[in-house]
Amino acid sequence: MKAAYYQGNRTFTIASSAAVPPGPGEVRLDVAYCGVCGTDIHIYHGAMDKRVKIPQIIGHEASATVGEVGEGVTGFQPGDPVVVRPLDNRAETPADRGHSHICKGLKFIGIDSPGAYQNSWTVPAFTLHKAPAGLDLKLAALAEPLAVACHDVRLSGAKPGELAVVLGGGPIGLLVALVARNAGARVILSEVNEFRLDFARSLGLEAVHSGRNDLVKLCQDQSEGSGADIVFEVSGAKSAALGMTDLLAIRGRIVVVAIYPQPVEINLFHFFWKELQMRGARVYEPEDYEKALSLLASGCLPLEKMITKTVPLGNVQQAFEELDANPNAMKVLLDCRA
Amino acid sequence: MKAAYYQGNRTFTIASSAAVPPGPGEVRLDVAYCGVCGTDIHIYHGAMDKRVKIPQIIGHEASATVGEVGEGVTGFQPGDPVVVRPLDNRAETPADRGHSHICKGLKFIGIDSPGAYQNSWTVPAFTLHKAPAGLDLKLAALAEPLAVACHDVRLSGAKPGELAVVLGGGPIGLLVALVARNAGARVILSEVNEFRLDFARSLGLEAVHSGRNDLVKLCQDQSEGSGADIVFEVSGAKSAALGMTDLLAIRGRIVVVAIYPQPVEINLFHFFWKELQMRGARVYEPEDYEKALSLLASGCLPLEKMITKTVPLGNVQQAFEELDANPNAMKVLLDCRA
Repeated sequence: MKAAYYQGNRTFTIASSAAVPPGPGEVRLDVAYCGVCGTDIHIYHGAMDKRVKIPQIIGHEASATVGEVGEGVTGFQPGDPVVVRPLDNRAETPADRGHSHICKGLKFIGIDSPGAYQNSWTVPAFTLHKAPAGLDLKLAALAEPLAVACHDVRLSGAKPGELAVVLGGGPIGLLVALVARNAGARVILSEVNEFRLDFARSLGLEAVHSGRNDLVKLCQDQSEGSGADIVFEVSGAKSAALGMTDLLAIRGRIVVVAIYPQPVEINLFHFFWKELQMRGARVYEPEDYEKALSLLASGCLPLEKMITKTVPLGNVQQAFEELDANPNAMKVLLDCRA
Repeated sequence: MKAAYYQGNRTFTIASSAAVPPGPGEVRLDVAYCGVCGTDIHIYHGAMDKRVKIPQIIGHEASATVGEVGEGVTGFQPGDPVVVRPLDNRAETPADRGHSHICKGLKFIGIDSPGAYQNSWTVPAFTLHKAPAGLDLKLAALAEPLAVACHDVRLSGAKPGELAVVLGGGPIGLLVALVARNAGARVILSEVNEFRLDFARSLGLEAVHSGRNDLVKLCQDQSEGSGADIVFEVSGAKSAALGMTDLLAIRGRIVVVAIYPQPVEINLFHFFWKELQMRGARVYEPEDYEKALSLLASGCLPLEKMITKTVPLGNVQQAFEELDANPNAMKVLLDCRA
């Protein structure tokens, strides 16, 4: 079988490797497609060289079919279409209070252990969700980022009719906007990149250039003067973090999706004055995967448009170089079929 | 009757003034005691000269007995002991979504309109709560700051056995600590002033000097490695805002009680990584007053110790000068009886 190895220094190599037979509780998958995540780009840039084990097979947005089933695994048989929830929580302790998905000892499969940029991938059976019958495996490869968006929207408590602002129109921001709209919220997406703005509009979203529009006024106008109910901060921009509290109504809610490596200024006076609420959101829980799969199967969201292109696994180096040079790409899938 | 007028420039004058007969829906109170709030000290310092109307009668932490009842007022009769919830929400609009206590047009009685530093005070009847029979009116004057603490603890969702850290041991921090403990939480109070630390210990609280103790380790040690469930940020210190996220367990909650005039740095990475939650808390709602009065009547909290001294209204100037010079005072009451 074939696998792509990250070698450090913005370099992938393709090599043959032996398929790993599934141990007890494990399943060997025949990988179909695997999306390239922003995190994978960070790894490619060398930003996570201390965490990954070079040479490493990365990739965690996979769809697959079951190849072989290990001892003691029930509920899956060869040929079943599946997606992988790449969270290994086997080091969970009582100190994690049951929050398995973000337990202190969490290993992220595809970063902390081998990932899906290969034909054959062996993972614990507890990471699998069955893909609904008939779901295109290309679309199924969107389950992971879509589950992130489902988690974010679920934690926001979005209710029908509420006004939600999504700050940042990259792949996750767009998915959050689509899922929030599906939950009944009225959504404004804010972005500065013209391509992304046009792309968001092509998905039927209301998208505004944050530099050329008075977002505070827009929120007021669309809420009879109250302000927005929810802000999803997906941009990671300091200016967004500082300004997000301006947008919100009394008791408005913020969900922090973006990863801020450094502390940033926040207007705590607004938290006090308007009794604002904020929560961080990280990865997903099993129910978010089920929600994502049901949205994918329903066909109610224009998710196929999110797939910019599909590239053979053997062209992984070229795919990363192109992605790196093109900020306008949305989701690139690697075709990992043998 | 007699009233204390704030004249600007750290000056109060005492003058006689005519009692205001209660209009429809109003009640004229014979004020008993009125606490001096940190906000009153800010006013004295001139920090709110643009908001108050000099010369102004300030004061909003009052206990009283009903003097006269205006037309249409039911449920109150002369002689009833009462406390005042000094929030005038008559400018509330639908855009406030029912959050009356922090509506955009809120007027704070005693800041935006005449307060309780006088013998006779006329207020809307909807601001009154009956004090339980037999409750000392000195203690009843603590209802307002205690209701702040009840609001903060209610919004924290504190549950029995949870570990709560209170950052800042001034009057509000101490009351938050006492109310959180009463709700069943295990409470650590963090402070840097030695007098306040000793005072907190005299109330039976666990109080630690944040500069001489590793608060992160202390929280870990008291939670089997999880971290604190709740942080109440009452200090208003930049270092507290930056460090508070270190203390918390996965999905820990922060309640921002302190008023930060300027944006401050917050560790949003911790929000993401641990899925932390934060909410601002401001003033109180009617149920918080009822809770405060029930705690006062029960005698279960050592609240009488919070009253540092009681001073005749006529000595208001001296009382403010002494308070200003003594950071160790807790609650000073003005005796406003004629």
